[in-house]
Amino acid sequence: MADQYAHSGEDGKPTEIPAIRWDEPPEGPVLVLLDQTKLPAEEVELVCTDASALVEAIRSLSVRGAPLLGIAGAYGVALAAARGFDVDAAADELAGARPTAVNLALGVRRARDAYRAELAGSGDVGRAASAALGAARALHAEDAEASGRMAERGLALLDELLPGGGHRILTHCNTGALVSGGEGTAFAVALAAHRAGRLRRLWVDETRPLLQGARLTAYEAARTGMAYTLLTDNAAGSLFAAGEVDAVLIGADRIAADGSVANKVGSYPLAVLARYHHVPFIVVAPLTTVDPATPDGASIEVEQRAGSEVTEFAVPQASAVGGGPGSGIPVAPLGTQAYNPAFDVTPPELVTAIVTEEGVVSPVTAEALAALCAKAGSSARTA
Amino acid sequence: MADQYAHSGEDGKPTEIPAIRWDEPPEGPVLVLLDQTKLPAEEVELVCTDASALVEAIRSLSVRGAPLLGIAGAYGVALAAARGFDVDAAADELAGARPTAVNLALGVRRARDAYRAELAGSGDVGRAASAALGAARALHAEDAEASGRMAERGLALLDELLPGGGHRILTHCNTGALVSGGEGTAFAVALAAHRAGRLRRLWVDETRPLLQGARLTAYEAARTGMAYTLLTDNAAGSLFAAGEVDAVLIGADRIAADGSVANKVGSYPLAVLARYHHVPFIVVAPLTTVDPATPDGASIEVEQRAGSEVTEFAVPQASAVGGGPGSGIPVAPLGTQAYNPAFDVTPPELVTAIVTEEGVVSPVTAEALAALCAKAGSSARTA
Repeated sequence: MADQYAHSGEDGKPTEIPAIRWDEPPEGPVLVLLDQTKLPAEEVELVCTDASALVEAIRSLSVRGAPLLGIAGAYGVALAAARGFDVDAAADELAGARPTAVNLALGVRRARDAYRAELAGSGDVGRAASAALGAARALHAEDAEASGRMAERGLALLDELLPGGGHRILTHCNTGALVSGGEGTAFAVALAAHRAGRLRRLWVDETRPLLQGARLTAYEAARTGMAYTLLTDNAAGSLFAAGEVDAVLIGADRIAADGSVANKVGSYPLAVLARYHHVPFIVVAPLTTVDPATPDGASIEVEQRAGSEVTEFAVPQASAVGGGPGSGIPVAPLGTQAYNPAFDVTPPELVTAIVTEEGVVSPVTAEALAALCAKAGSSARTA
Repeated sequence: MADQYAHSGEDGKPTEIPAIRWDEPPEGPVLVLLDQTKLPAEEVELVCTDASALVEAIRSLSVRGAPLLGIAGAYGVALAAARGFDVDAAADELAGARPTAVNLALGVRRARDAYRAELAGSGDVGRAASAALGAARALHAEDAEASGRMAERGLALLDELLPGGGHRILTHCNTGALVSGGEGTAFAVALAAHRAGRLRRLWVDETRPLLQGARLTAYEAARTGMAYTLLTDNAAGSLFAAGEVDAVLIGADRIAADGSVANKVGSYPLAVLARYHHVPFIVVAPLTTVDPATPDGASIEVEQRAGSEVTEFAVPQASAVGGGPGSGIPVAPLGTQAYNPAFDVTPPELVTAIVTEEGVVSPVTAEALAALCAKAGSSARTA
């Protein structure tokens, strides 16, 4: 079951609540999630005391974002073990909460494997539960560490490309701590620039139709104290034309072997604008995002989402990412069809650099990407 | 004062209600407006029996769009005259309803001049009122006629540029009968293609932040029966990349002497995308939109609108185009600043052609535009 803790800064400003945390109050261990469907209007923590509550939180998108889902899944297994539930049943339930989220299944498997190995060895359920929690914490820490290295490498690249400093960075969608065990991908680079005193402004695309930029990235920017400004996606053109953008930083959902980047819809128009205005277009993503099995951009299947995300406005508090047709406020005539791809594909020739935790690929070619993956794989094997 | 007539098709589909019409029921003449703030959820006609009601409708944006405002202003003077009110006082009130709308003042002046001239000549207030009404009707008819000629020339250009037919046209913002005495500008061209059986699809940008595409263009497309699909502005990139756009057609707020086009924000990114994908980018606007006093794009002052249009979602039924900060549903954290230019500027080198009622300019150069204006001016003088 899940309880709710409500928080809000006294002045209504965002406070420092992590997206996910393990807690051990006297009543027993719990997994505490920041409920992302309530942002930015309310900061509510969802307290899960069993795997079923977490499954519900995953399904309702209270917790979302590929790396964060993996971490949540691992903690979910640890929670079931610590509270003496059937660990295999909990793991199956968690892994199936969102079948297409590969990170979720991977995180679940990692914690369950640790639990099973310890149980087979020592036969002690208490030590097996600790092993599961240890696996979850390791995954969490590794993700945070990868995030830190991406931020470092990304900032170094920015400083190299923009030696004058005073970076004005445009970003799209949400790539910060809300989708990561650390501080995220593209957002983490902007945050590093902010901490180094070199971020002049973060331009935040609102990111239609689900407004992840307005709802989540603006929220993350506000709580770090950086200078940021929100804009409609189509106002980015005016910023480029006015010379107000020094670099574009985005994340990635998947990177094909040739360096084509699938990311939130609206990324590709920014890449075309960036090229037209000679502005660097930089993709920041962990190496796990590179999918060697997908040869090129044309091989990436683009998910088409419900038209109601466009024809209706989903009230943020009630249903952050669409509660299905008819649940929002209509903004178009009844019966209007909408074209609503979830992401778009940017070809490698429009990408200035891909920044990963293991290194930077620039220019972006299939050979350079493969070399980086091979190097990272061999260093992982020798570590 | 104003009454309301409510209409709606039995199946909830849009019906054929004109944006403005003069009516003479037994109780006396009235000016009937389609209340655009209620679209697309409700089709409500606003019935004005005096100039004050019309002023209120103009201020609340129930009636909007430069050409339509001119027509409304002229009819407003005619209404005051027909009902025996003080015509000069009504004209002053109307002309000041939206001080920056030059067409409004021009329309008011035209009807008042006709009223004064007839009164000075015959001394008959009835005949003077008829003269004012005649002037309003003439303006209405001229605007409709210009719209028809733009549609004809625009379709001929499309057929020339796209000899294969089966046009798939992308448009932005609202340029149809809701802003015109006729069928509009860019939308009128798409409509002509539809009637000729050569429109395969109209792609309708939703046009953030005020959603004129979703609310108004989709409504106009639906009531003409054309094949149309709504999309978020940032999904246009995916359409271009997929080869699904044959031409972009937009209107213009102002055209500088060098051919730079100021139009609704989001037009410029489409122009850059169109160029990158070798797709024609066509501007359709009456010759009155060309402003020889503005030498180039840099001289066009870009209106910055309230950030609340971006940080809040204005509920369509309550307040179509923003009822001021705090009146909408917040979609960003409290205190978020937004960059919200009302329009952007597309340089002439990205514009394939400018279609006017007097002729087509392509390629777009200062010389070609000046020559068309001069030709139109001399033919007007000799007419």
